[in-house]
Amino acid sequence: MEPIKSLDQMVEHVIKSGIKKKIAVASGEDQNTIGAISRAVKDGFAEAVLIGNKSKIEQRAKEEGIDPSIFTIIHCDHPSNAIEKALEMVKSGEADVLMKGLVGTDEFLKAVLDKNKGLLPPGAIMSYVAVMQVPAYHKLLFVSDTAVLPFPDLKQKLAEIKYCLNMARAFGIERPKVALIGASEKVSPNFPNTIDYSAICKMAERKQLDNCIVDGPLDIFLACDKESVEIKGVHTPVDGDADILIFPSLDACNAFYKGLMLFAGAELGGLIQGTEKPVVVMSRSESEKSKYYCIAMSCLMA
Amino acid sequence: MEPIKSLDQMVEHVIKSGIKKKIAVASGEDQNTIGAISRAVKDGFAEAVLIGNKSKIEQRAKEEGIDPSIFTIIHCDHPSNAIEKALEMVKSGEADVLMKGLVGTDEFLKAVLDKNKGLLPPGAIMSYVAVMQVPAYHKLLFVSDTAVLPFPDLKQKLAEIKYCLNMARAFGIERPKVALIGASEKVSPNFPNTIDYSAICKMAERKQLDNCIVDGPLDIFLACDKESVEIKGVHTPVDGDADILIFPSLDACNAFYKGLMLFAGAELGGLIQGTEKPVVVMSRSESEKSKYYCIAMSCLMA
Repeated sequence: MEPIKSLDQMVEHVIKSGIKKKIAVASGEDQNTIGAISRAVKDGFAEAVLIGNKSKIEQRAKEEGIDPSIFTIIHCDHPSNAIEKALEMVKSGEADVLMKGLVGTDEFLKAVLDKNKGLLPPGAIMSYVAVMQVPAYHKLLFVSDTAVLPFPDLKQKLAEIKYCLNMARAFGIERPKVALIGASEKVSPNFPNTIDYSAICKMAERKQLDNCIVDGPLDIFLACDKESVEIKGVHTPVDGDADILIFPSLDACNAFYKGLMLFAGAELGGLIQGTEKPVVVMSRSESEKSKYYCIAMSCLMA
Repeated sequence: MEPIKSLDQMVEHVIKSGIKKKIAVASGEDQNTIGAISRAVKDGFAEAVLIGNKSKIEQRAKEEGIDPSIFTIIHCDHPSNAIEKALEMVKSGEADVLMKGLVGTDEFLKAVLDKNKGLLPPGAIMSYVAVMQVPAYHKLLFVSDTAVLPFPDLKQKLAEIKYCLNMARAFGIERPKVALIGASEKVSPNFPNTIDYSAICKMAERKQLDNCIVDGPLDIFLACDKESVEIKGVHTPVDGDADILIFPSLDACNAFYKGLMLFAGAELGGLIQGTEKPVVVMSRSESEKSKYYCIAMSCLMA
């Protein structure tokens, strides 16, 4: 498989591979969700089960010029019932992907994390992986964590790396280059993350990490720009050609990706990882395109 | 004064105002430093005193096609002597700006922070303010802290705001809009910075901050994009029109600005603030243009 280099190529790949997954949408009542998922249904890689107020769903679909009969609609009066029903379908294997609709993120994630009815195996770490397409970069960037883990510790960083590697491999990147991001390439007790990074590099050296190239701390220049690597004269196997960026904090990852979406024309798709099945949680401010990419990615990873 | 909206406008303003400042360069022996400062000298707003190995300085200047007689050169055999001499000149008022040349940043900053011979007043907080020119944004962005304070506490955040306000005012922005950056607009005990941000907002409400508009937590979208403010329906006086971005950590600010330099054509000038006189510290990987902007900014702020 050739490495996938753009989000549109990812969608093409999903379509060509004949992938078809069933997505259970909790409270799929808003126009945004209905718009994005209808496109995925029309493109043939998703079947959608919208759980929520049936008449509202039908009305919204019609307002958007969408025939509601392309969806399976399950009527539910209350959002928390809708979450419960959607979770049940995914947990039992009836559906392949869980997706959040018009319901609070906190309430939704609480249900996903529920010990008995939820989707997180005991001891597993939940994290969010986003795939960024930055026009000025020569390939896709897998970044973590944009949304779930505020200050990842060493175990959580290792989980983030594992999830990014899984996803990069699904995109055809056999031996991904992982950059552990800091403000510079120096290890310092003032930046505790750089100590974790050193441990991760040693683990890679001891072959405790699966088929990848890892280095850090590296700043964004050293991670993504060969010229900077030459100018600074830093020896690093990532060599300005990173596939995966692991950030020291959610704040750092969040500011990075939002800056590039706003000012560098970046597009993004993302997924919750660590759960038994992929979970799609999209924020209101994400573009229609971005939401569509999230859905396609969830079908690829399911 | 009309607000300055680009780094080139800032240089124009410095030239037109007839500003002329004397810059003492510790170990001004490398081509990068000599190149950037010679341009400032030729443009008339800087006089340069290069302190270091005289024959090396003369040779490097000639290699770059620069007449070394445009500089005052003070011979010093050893870098630490060069730092000491440069500091002495700035401290005594003989020079207006201190600049780092071919000497380690750690050694240089240690000297700047020295209680007796250094430039930091007792109790003062040293921080770094950078001014970013992002082609896709409609004005300049003052950001802090890119380089000095790893995890600013409340006092340090307030110092950062003060320094950014000072600088924004020197750029003709009378009532700057300050966005306190987080991953979302929500205050949460999981993100201790958002607690500090709430305190800062309350201080602004109590008129404890000087002539500015402050709000946070705000993410990059809400800080810099009016459309996102409308879509999310968040009421914020910054209203997607921020002049100043205060980041929760150095890592976040660093990833943000480097991402935009690499992928969004951003240019940047920066200065150490909190010291008695401006201090210019440029990293090797900064562009020639960026170094020139730093020097012009130091003359504006001296």
